[in-house]
Amino acid sequence: MCRWLAYAGEPLQPSTLILETKHSLVAQSLNSPLGFETVNGDGFGVGWYGKDAAPGTPPAMFHSIEPAWHDENLRELTQAIESPLFLAHVRAAAAPPIQQTNCHPFRHGHWLFMHNGGLAHFSRLRRDLMLAVDPELFPHIRGTTDSEVLFHLAVTYGLQEDPIRGLGRAIRHVEKTADGFGIRDVVQGTFAVSDGRTLWAFRYSTVGRSRTLFHSADMATLQETYPHNEKLHRFGAKARVVVSEPLSDLPGAFIEVPESTVTVLDPDDFHTEPFLAD
Amino acid sequence: MCRWLAYAGEPLQPSTLILETKHSLVAQSLNSPLGFETVNGDGFGVGWYGKDAAPGTPPAMFHSIEPAWHDENLRELTQAIESPLFLAHVRAAAAPPIQQTNCHPFRHGHWLFMHNGGLAHFSRLRRDLMLAVDPELFPHIRGTTDSEVLFHLAVTYGLQEDPIRGLGRAIRHVEKTADGFGIRDVVQGTFAVSDGRTLWAFRYSTVGRSRTLFHSADMATLQETYPHNEKLHRFGAKARVVVSEPLSDLPGAFIEVPESTVTVLDPDDFHTEPFLAD
Amino acid sequence: MCRWLAYAGEPLQPSTLILETKHSLVAQSLNSPLGFETVNGDGFGVGWYGKDAAPGTPPAMFHSIEPAWHDENLRELTQAIESPLFLAHVRAAAAPPIQQTNCHPFRHGHWLFMHNGGLAHFSRLRRDLMLAVDPELFPHIRGTTDSEVLFHLAVTYGLQEDPIRGLGRAIRHVEKTADGFGIRDVVQGTFAVSDGRTLWAFRYSTVGRSRTLFHSADMATLQETYPHNEKLHRFGAKARVVVSEPLSDLPGAFIEVPESTVTVLDPDDFHTEPFLAD
Amino acid sequence: MCRWLAYAGEPLQPSTLILETKHSLVAQSLNSPLGFETVNGDGFGVGWYGKDAAPGTPPAMFHSIEPAWHDENLRELTQAIESPLFLAHVRAAAAPPIQQTNCHPFRHGHWLFMHNGGLAHFSRLRRDLMLAVDPELFPHIRGTTDSEVLFHLAVTYGLQEDPIRGLGRAIRHVEKTADGFGIRDVVQGTFAVSDGRTLWAFRYSTVGRSRTLFHSADMATLQETYPHNEKLHRFGAKARVVVSEPLSDLPGAFIEVPESTVTVLDPDDFHTEPFLAD
Repeated sequence: MCRWLAYAGEPLQPSTLILETKHSLVAQSLNSPLGFETVNGDGFGVGWYGKDAAPGTPPAMFHSIEPAWHDENLRELTQAIESPLFLAHVRAAAAPPIQQTNCHPFRHGHWLFMHNGGLAHFSRLRRDLMLAVDPELFPHIRGTTDSEVLFHLAVTYGLQEDPIRGLGRAIRHVEKTADGFGIRDVVQGTFAVSDGRTLWAFRYSTVGRSRTLFHSADMATLQETYPHNEKLHRFGAKARVVVSEPLSDLPGAFIEVPESTVTVLDPDDFHTEPFLAD
Repeated sequence: MCRWLAYAGEPLQPSTLILETKHSLVAQSLNSPLGFETVNGDGFGVGWYGKDAAPGTPPAMFHSIEPAWHDENLRELTQAIESPLFLAHVRAAAAPPIQQTNCHPFRHGHWLFMHNGGLAHFSRLRRDLMLAVDPELFPHIRGTTDSEVLFHLAVTYGLQEDPIRGLGRAIRHVEKTADGFGIRDVVQGTFAVSDGRTLWAFRYSTVGRSRTLFHSADMATLQETYPHNEKLHRFGAKARVVVSEPLSDLPGAFIEVPESTVTVLDPDDFHTEPFLAD
Repeated sequence: MCRWLAYAGEPLQPSTLILETKHSLVAQSLNSPLGFETVNGDGFGVGWYGKDAAPGTPPAMFHSIEPAWHDENLRELTQAIESPLFLAHVRAAAAPPIQQTNCHPFRHGHWLFMHNGGLAHFSRLRRDLMLAVDPELFPHIRGTTDSEVLFHLAVTYGLQEDPIRGLGRAIRHVEKTADGFGIRDVVQGTFAVSDGRTLWAFRYSTVGRSRTLFHSADMATLQETYPHNEKLHRFGAKARVVVSEPLSDLPGAFIEVPESTVTVLDPDDFHTEPFLAD
Repeated sequence: MCRWLAYAGEPLQPSTLILETKHSLVAQSLNSPLGFETVNGDGFGVGWYGKDAAPGTPPAMFHSIEPAWHDENLRELTQAIESPLFLAHVRAAAAPPIQQTNCHPFRHGHWLFMHNGGLAHFSRLRRDLMLAVDPELFPHIRGTTDSEVLFHLAVTYGLQEDPIRGLGRAIRHVEKTADGFGIRDVVQGTFAVSDGRTLWAFRYSTVGRSRTLFHSADMATLQETYPHNEKLHRFGAKARVVVSEPLSDLPGAFIEVPESTVTVLDPDDFHTEPFLAD
C-alpha cells in the first residue's frame, strides 16, 4: 500500500533517487502507475547509514506525517547528507492513524526494515501476533501497523542472525495464525531489510501475486551502454537500487524481481535466490 | 488547483457532503477526475456559520495542513456541527509552503472567501498587488497565496458593500497589473464568497477557460424525481450546493455554471447572472 | 503529568473555561504552579457531548499534537460549540511519541476517559496489562500511553456498568501486576469518566499522595456571594467544574477533592464518596 | 522571545550543544531562567554548513513547528551530522501563526540569520518595512515575523557585502520608521549572521536593555583549567559558542557580551567591537 526504494553502493545524496529522477520516489508518492493505490501521501520516512560509521552503528531516521511531495525538510535533508546505504518509504495508509510511529522504515539496533503491502484482517490478528513477539521486544512496538509487528516477529525469529530465515519464519507464523482465524492470503508484500552492510529485498505473498519489485541493472554495464547519459554517470560502479517501480523509462535499467525471491546486495556480491516462508 | 464546495439551506451536518457522498469533497481530494491536479492533499479548511447566529456574527473556521482523507478531526467536527451555510476546500499547492495560513477559506469580519485556480506568475505580481491592498488590511494578510491577496484586494474594492462589483474590480486590477508585466491570462478560477446569509459563486478566467463549477438542481424537484433515493431525502427543500465537480452521478442533480457567471444563493432567491471583471 | 478539566451543567462554550479565565486550562498549559511539570505542551484534546444529543450518543473529539496555547483551531472550535458536558486535557509527556492517539480524552462508545498522572515503570508492565484487556477491546488500543491501557482495562472490568467499581478493579489489577514486578507506588493520578449524563472525577494514588484535584463550589451560592462578578453570571445555576488546579483565585470558588475520593456530578445530584482500589 | 545558539569551530555533532549539556538549547526551550518567556515551544530550527562544503555553498535547514523537547527528528538529525558552523533556535511566539516559515534561522543564498527579541508594534510597521525591502527580495519573504523582514531589509542594505554595516543600517531604518509612527524603543534583540565562514553575533536594542547574550571562553584555556572535565575535551581547540544564556554552570566558561556589541568569530580571529545602528 506504499512505495519504497533502497540504495546500496558508493555514498550518494539520497535526493538523487528520492527527488531528482523522472519517476522518483516523491513523484511516485503523487502518482504511482504500478501501485495498488496511486497516491502515497500518508507520511514518509528515510533511514540512512553514515558514510564513515563503524559496522553496527545504528542508522539515523527521519519520519514525517506530511505528504513527501512538498516537504521542505525532506528536500533539505536528502541533499545535505551522503550515505552508502539508505531506505526510503512513502506511505498509503488504509486508515488512520497517520503518525510518525507508523512511518517506515522501522529500526531495531542497527537494523532497518520496511514493507509495502499488508497483512489481511490485521486488526483481528494483532493481539495474537503481538503476543508471539519476544516480551523483551514488546515495549518497542510503538505504532499500529502490521509492518512493525511483523518486523518484531522477525527479530523474535532470529532476523539478526539470519535475515532470510528470520523473516521466512515470521511470515510462516503469520500464515499459521491466519489459518486459525480462517483468513486466507494473509501476507502480501515486498520487504527491505538491512544491517548497514548488506541489503535484503524480498518479494513474497501467500498466494504468489505480490506487489511489484525491481532492481537496477549493473551500473558499469549501464554506463557503458549509455555513455552520454549524464544522470547515470553520477552513480558509482557498485550502485544498486531496489524499488517498488522503475525510477526511469531507460530500457534495460530496471529488472523485475520474480515472485518468492530475495535479492541480496552486498559490497562484494549481488545475487537473488528463492524465498519461501518456512 | 484545488476543489471546493459551498452549501446553503436548512442546517446540515457538513459531513453529509464532505465525507458521505460518492464523489464527496474528501473523495475528490484523493481523486478529482475534472481537476487540473488529481490529488488535493496539501491541507484543507472548513468555514461555517452558526445555526442560530445573529446576522453579522463571524463564522468559525477549521484549517489543517494534513490531507483531508484520513483526518480524524475533520470527520469528528463535521459530524458534530450543523450549519445553514458552510464552505469547504481541499488544496493542491503548486509549491510549498504548506501551512494553515495558506488554507482556504479566508475570513474577514463575517465574510468568507475561497478560490480554486490561480494568478499566473504570482510571485512577480505579489508586491504590487499587496501594495494595492488597503494599508489597514495589510497586516491581516498572513499567508503566501495569491487567493488571500485577491480576497483582500476585493475587500479593498468594496466586496463588503457589493461582492460582485468588489470582486470584479479586484480581478480587473489584477489583470491591469499583469498587463504591465506582460503576463497574459492571469486570472483563472472559481470563487465563493459569503456573508453568512447569501452565497455568491463565481466562475471566471481572463481568457474564458475556467475551472469547472456546478450547482445542484432544485431539491424539491429532485426529491420528486427520485422519491426512493434516501440520501436526497436527508436534505431540506431549500438545500443547494455549489461545487467544483458533481458530488454524485445522479442524472439531473448537478448543472454546470457557465463561463463568466455568478450564481447567487439566498434564502429567498436563487439566480445566475453574467460576471465580468470591470 | 498533565492538566485537565471537566464541566457539567447548562450548555456552555468550552472556551469560557479553556481559554478565558485567569488560570484557564490553556494558561495552565504554559504554566501550572501546582503541576508536577510546569509545561504541558505535548498536545491536547477536547471531548464534548452534543447539546441536544440523545442519551448514548457518542461524544465528538478534537485532538492535536500542537501546544494548546497558540492553537487557532482550538480557539475557533471551543467558541463555536456549546456543550452540557465536556472534558479537556493538556498533555505533558514523559517521552515521545507525541501523536494524536496519545492525546486524551479517550473514547469507547459513548464513554470518555482522561487521566493526569501515570503508571510507574509502565514499559515493563505494558505487555501484561494489555494481555489483561478483553481481546475484543485490544484492537481499539491505538496509542502508547498507560492511560489508554488503564481505560480499556477498566472497560474490561465493567466500567460501563459501574464506573467506580470498574475503575477500582482495574487499578487493583495494575497494583497486583506491579507487585509481581516489584514495582511500588504504581498508580498515581486523577481520572475523569463520563457517559454524557454523569461525570465521575477520581483522585487516587497507590500511596495516597495524588496529584491535586478541585471542584467548583455551588454556583448559585457563589453568584449570591459575588453579585457583581460578571464572569460568574455567565454560568447557569447547575454549572460545575472539576479541574487539576483552580481556574481563578476567587476565595471559596474551588474546593480540594480529598485523597482517595470520587466526586459524582449528575443533573440531579452532586456528592463525593471514598474511592478505593478493590 | 526565543533562545538561540551558534557554533563555530572544529566539525561537531550539533546534538552536543542542542541536547546534551545541562542547560542545552532544548533544556532552555522548556525552561530558560534568563529568558523573557520561560517556555520556547513554538517550533524550532537548525541551519548548518556542510563539513566539506565549498565556500559559498548554501547551508541546509531543518524547521519544525513542534516543541523541540520531544522531537525525535531533531534528535536523529543532530546526532547524524557534523558541522563546523551551525545555528539553532527555539521559538516563543507572541501570537500565532505557528508555521515553518516563521521558524529561524532564515536563509538567503549562503547566508543565515536568526533573532531573539522583536520589533515593537510590528503589525503597524510591517507594510512600510516590507516596502523598503528590495523588490527583488520581496517574493522571498514567506512568513509573518518581524525577524524575517528585518533580515531582508539588512540584505537590502548590503549585509552580504558588510554584515555589520548592513544590519546597522537596517536597524536604523526600522528606528526611523518607528519614529514616524510614534513608536519608541522599537528594536530589541540579539542577532546571529553567518556566511558559512564567519559568525557575527550582535547584542543591541534601541534603548540599550537588550536580551542576554554570552560567548564561550577560549577552549584551550578552559581545557587547561578543567583537565578532568570530559565534556570539555569533546571540543576542538577552536570551538566557540554564542548563546542566549550559558549552557553550563562551569565558572569561567561563558562570558556576557556587552550591550551594543558585535562578536566576530572566524577561523583566524575572535574579537568584539561596538555595534551601533547608523
